[in-house]
Amino acid sequence: MEFIQSIQNSKVKQWAKLISKKGREQEHAFLVEGEHLVEEAMKAEELIQCLIIQETMQEKYQGWIDECRAPSYLVSEQVMNKLSETQTPQGICAVVQINKHSLSELTEGRPILLALDGLQDPGNLGTIIRTADAAGIDGVILGKGTVDLYNGKVIRSTMGSIFHLPIFQLDLTVEIPRLKEKGFRIVSTSLEGAVAYDEPQYADAVVIVIGNEANGVSQEILQCSTTKVKIPLYGQAESLNAAVAAGIILYEAARQRRKLQG
Amino acid sequence: MEFIQSIQNSKVKQWAKLISKKGREQEHAFLVEGEHLVEEAMKAEELIQCLIIQETMQEKYQGWIDECRAPSYLVSEQVMNKLSETQTPQGICAVVQINKHSLSELTEGRPILLALDGLQDPGNLGTIIRTADAAGIDGVILGKGTVDLYNGKVIRSTMGSIFHLPIFQLDLTVEIPRLKEKGFRIVSTSLEGAVAYDEPQYADAVVIVIGNEANGVSQEILQCSTTKVKIPLYGQAESLNAAVAAGIILYEAARQRRKLQG
Repeated sequence: MEFIQSIQNSKVKQWAKLISKKGREQEHAFLVEGEHLVEEAMKAEELIQCLIIQETMQEKYQGWIDECRAPSYLVSEQVMNKLSETQTPQGICAVVQINKHSLSELTEGRPILLALDGLQDPGNLGTIIRTADAAGIDGVILGKGTVDLYNGKVIRSTMGSIFHLPIFQLDLTVEIPRLKEKGFRIVSTSLEGAVAYDEPQYADAVVIVIGNEANGVSQEILQCSTTKVKIPLYGQAESLNAAVAAGIILYEAARQRRKLQG
Repeated sequence: MEFIQSIQNSKVKQWAKLISKKGREQEHAFLVEGEHLVEEAMKAEELIQCLIIQETMQEKYQGWIDECRAPSYLVSEQVMNKLSETQTPQGICAVVQINKHSLSELTEGRPILLALDGLQDPGNLGTIIRTADAAGIDGVILGKGTVDLYNGKVIRSTMGSIFHLPIFQLDLTVEIPRLKEKGFRIVSTSLEGAVAYDEPQYADAVVIVIGNEANGVSQEILQCSTTKVKIPLYGQAESLNAAVAAGIILYEAARQRRKLQG
């Protein structure tokens, strides 16, 4: 197993490129860090390109090194700090290939999809992906203007759910009309002309669209929607956090489907 | 109107004490910063002890200075930076008196209360208070071991909801049995021995208890609960974010109450 001490090493330079969006797009790969996320990545093992482990942690992770089919590298603390975006690195990272799913795989049966239209906050995006996983959503579509999926903060906030369901980065103004034509109902959040979020039925093929934190769902997507929904505000709060709002609507859909199944 | 230039000024030293929990407890006051939060504080004007405005912002906030019955102070950028916990201070702060509500005010009728048992993350606490406000919850009880309500990150995450509903810092092991004796149902989240969160009815007087992010609701409170509930996990996610979980349960309660009212 190779030991890499210097941050000038060419592999380290290549890995460090993955911290930027441009680098990830060039390499079709991203970095995950920390024990829990690497553990989740190892369940999708065919995607792992390599494990990177701080030398002081070799004993702890020897079982993982033995088990992983991809190569492992031991690195110095200095190298680990260069690759880590957290204040207290856990001493383990993995380089993971970006998985290209096809949306057409998901149009059979009565799928339930979530689309995000220009969501800005990395913590919100990660938490929403985690919530979509928990609620049993079949796939998530990230529209243009949504924060990059492979941003380190997004990945950490997903708590591993990034490996649990297919996630697409696509143009909603192209995909939403296509899904509608295929028979999907398009349920978008909106403050105006909307019914309460628990009024529509979510049992058939449906796309739930959540918008930008400040501006909501764009006009173009609203005009293409089958139903507009809102979450009633009973107190004096002016709005809900986007991840909380997504959780309330996704779980109403899951609740209805559970009731129908008895 | 007094202008304060130096961070050595005795008023500035007194205000800066409010950044620490100990200082807030001594002074029975806390600091809020930023335009939106100060605006919300001004709606509860009797609680404002003073407005603090950066001299460069005097023109923008002259209307607020005229309107506020409490004294206003103009300060240098250096003073504002000392009082601010954010990277880009908005140039306006207020010192607000800590409001002491009594829980006994809230036991008439069929109130719906939220209790938090050892919640740790400031962002989660603020977001949960914002969500409780939105869902029309009558009051929030923060148990021992829950992060301090007047922590700057908590206040900012409430988006002003800290001024919209009564919030109590109490010992749940004392208050929950008392509320139960007064006829409240105690609905606690739990992974074991729990029914789905939408099975109980939330129409009568009820306390919903959400636990610590890692360990959940404490055994002592679980033993005193009328009903244990869980949110089903349909995918591979191991848990939900605490604020998302709170939102799903609080809105199920609000949904049931809305349905009953027709």
